[in-house]
Amino acid sequence: MPSMFAINADDVRSAARMLSGIAVRTPLLEYAVLNELAGRRVLVKFEGAQHTGSFKFRGAYNRLARIEEAARAGGVVAWSSGNHAQGVAAAARLLGMRATIVMPSDAPAIKKENTEALGAEIVLYDRQTESREDISAALAARLGATLVPPFNDPFVIAGQGTVGLEILQQAEAAGAGLGQVLVCCGGGGLTAGVATAIKDADPSIDVYSVEPSAYDDTARSLVSGRNETVAAGAYSICDALLTPSPGEMTFPINQALLSGGLAVTDEQVKGAMRFAFEKLKLVVEPGGAVALAAVLYSLAPRTERATSVVVSGSNVDPELYASIISWR
Amino acid sequence: MPSMFAINADDVRSAARMLSGIAVRTPLLEYAVLNELAGRRVLVKFEGAQHTGSFKFRGAYNRLARIEEAARAGGVVAWSSGNHAQGVAAAARLLGMRATIVMPSDAPAIKKENTEALGAEIVLYDRQTESREDISAALAARLGATLVPPFNDPFVIAGQGTVGLEILQQAEAAGAGLGQVLVCCGGGGLTAGVATAIKDADPSIDVYSVEPSAYDDTARSLVSGRNETVAAGAYSICDALLTPSPGEMTFPINQALLSGGLAVTDEQVKGAMRFAFEKLKLVVEPGGAVALAAVLYSLAPRTERATSVVVSGSNVDPELYASIISWR
Repeated sequence: MPSMFAINADDVRSAARMLSGIAVRTPLLEYAVLNELAGRRVLVKFEGAQHTGSFKFRGAYNRLARIEEAARAGGVVAWSSGNHAQGVAAAARLLGMRATIVMPSDAPAIKKENTEALGAEIVLYDRQTESREDISAALAARLGATLVPPFNDPFVIAGQGTVGLEILQQAEAAGAGLGQVLVCCGGGGLTAGVATAIKDADPSIDVYSVEPSAYDDTARSLVSGRNETVAAGAYSICDALLTPSPGEMTFPINQALLSGGLAVTDEQVKGAMRFAFEKLKLVVEPGGAVALAAVLYSLAPRTERATSVVVSGSNVDPELYASIISWR
Repeated sequence: MPSMFAINADDVRSAARMLSGIAVRTPLLEYAVLNELAGRRVLVKFEGAQHTGSFKFRGAYNRLARIEEAARAGGVVAWSSGNHAQGVAAAARLLGMRATIVMPSDAPAIKKENTEALGAEIVLYDRQTESREDISAALAARLGATLVPPFNDPFVIAGQGTVGLEILQQAEAAGAGLGQVLVCCGGGGLTAGVATAIKDADPSIDVYSVEPSAYDDTARSLVSGRNETVAAGAYSICDALLTPSPGEMTFPINQALLSGGLAVTDEQVKGAMRFAFEKLKLVVEPGGAVALAAVLYSLAPRTERATSVVVSGSNVDPELYASIISWR
């Protein structure tokens, strides 16, 4: 009987084998100052130390490495606001493949620059008037390239899920009994992958998605049971999480496995970025700070056991970062 | 026959036992982008993740925990530009002791605030006209307190040396054969402690001190064999490393064990801080960035084997940090 879900825990373990020695096993960090504030152990999974500064390399590499030899010459096409772009570009470089990335013209400069520096070709589009999916599909057809979606792909979801496997192993090594895991959520690939790994190992651990409050489509969809969409013209500082509705492949997994969806305001995101600067000494981008914000502002349900928060990425333009950390 | 040195490797191992489960075992991080740039494996020991944001907690706790029961009621007095202050304050809080810290009036605000937040009392002095040693000694006498020097103390040096023990263990776990270790140097306590641990384990590993070029007293002393002093009015952005001459206890160790002393300019320090922001995603204070700068600007002798750089601290005022990372 085929699974009703795009992936299962075996797929995440397979991804872990594919990524072994290639992706960074990022640290799970613990700070007394954060534990005191939260009133419990908080374990910070720092994906800023991953190749290209976010978790996206995991799913990208796991996807590209599965492309058959005959199809590799055509290269890959992906669309992304920046972190998936860099992940795909880095994976393509390692595997000797061409990469073309469709990016919104208002993506952070650091993400565009880094993607180009990794050897990818960038095609810009207007987020308000053009369809990145259409542009990407046309490009892929013309180039004979493989499309690498940011989240609606089983290998991508499984690759992101290796974050969850590592959290389980590292929390055990730290002697911490996990009660909950908080994961940022755009299209839901990281959340679905991590939840698949965590719930397979221990169904008593609660996994929550965390979104910007203006882009809380997954939280509302979890409540209504339908695919909810954000309002037109919605804005959040979290450029990595601006996905208007849950993914077709990711939402069924998240619906089945998540204990709920949390949402944080942009002000809380900025507060978490400042806290990470002042106390954790980690650079965190807005979208990477939402799970930490949920702990800092007591938005996650209380647990006696430890909480792990995924800090998913750290690619933020210096001017924006400077303005956020020096605000009083 | 007594050792000619203030400490030996057994003292570092004893400190490691004292700090076990109390100090943070900070991560040893590796980044492909840094390896490519350096042309060899570079392992970053990130002491920003230590309690109070720098390695200083290690030596402070190892010193305070050795104070006999009868003397604990008198509390401790320390002088420091900020990181030792916070380390002593945090250790005193854990051990239930009073702490009074003599700090220069121009110390970074974040260091003063954090020291007070840890429950210590601060006494300010003028770096240009007053003697912190005299003020501290008078205070200690009046309070019946134990003086905790920032580097001229065997327990302090041994505590800092646990950074070196961890580097050895973590580099081995990462399968990296170490060729050299680069350590920032103010009074020389961290350098002496780390060198003691490293050279005891493997004399073929070269250990280098790294100083700001305006405060290169240890580098020059290593060359001349005498205790050299920096010029009056010397300036560096590295507030944590403004020690005018090598320490009495630390220099004999450093003279015997170091392969040389390196120096970096303030511009190189800023470049390393920007690199850490952009690529490593780590917040690093000026004094914490000198060893990284030595690798980035190819100032360390070439080695085929891996280099470990100690990023010793991350306590930097947001305004200064903002101006450094957003400089173009």
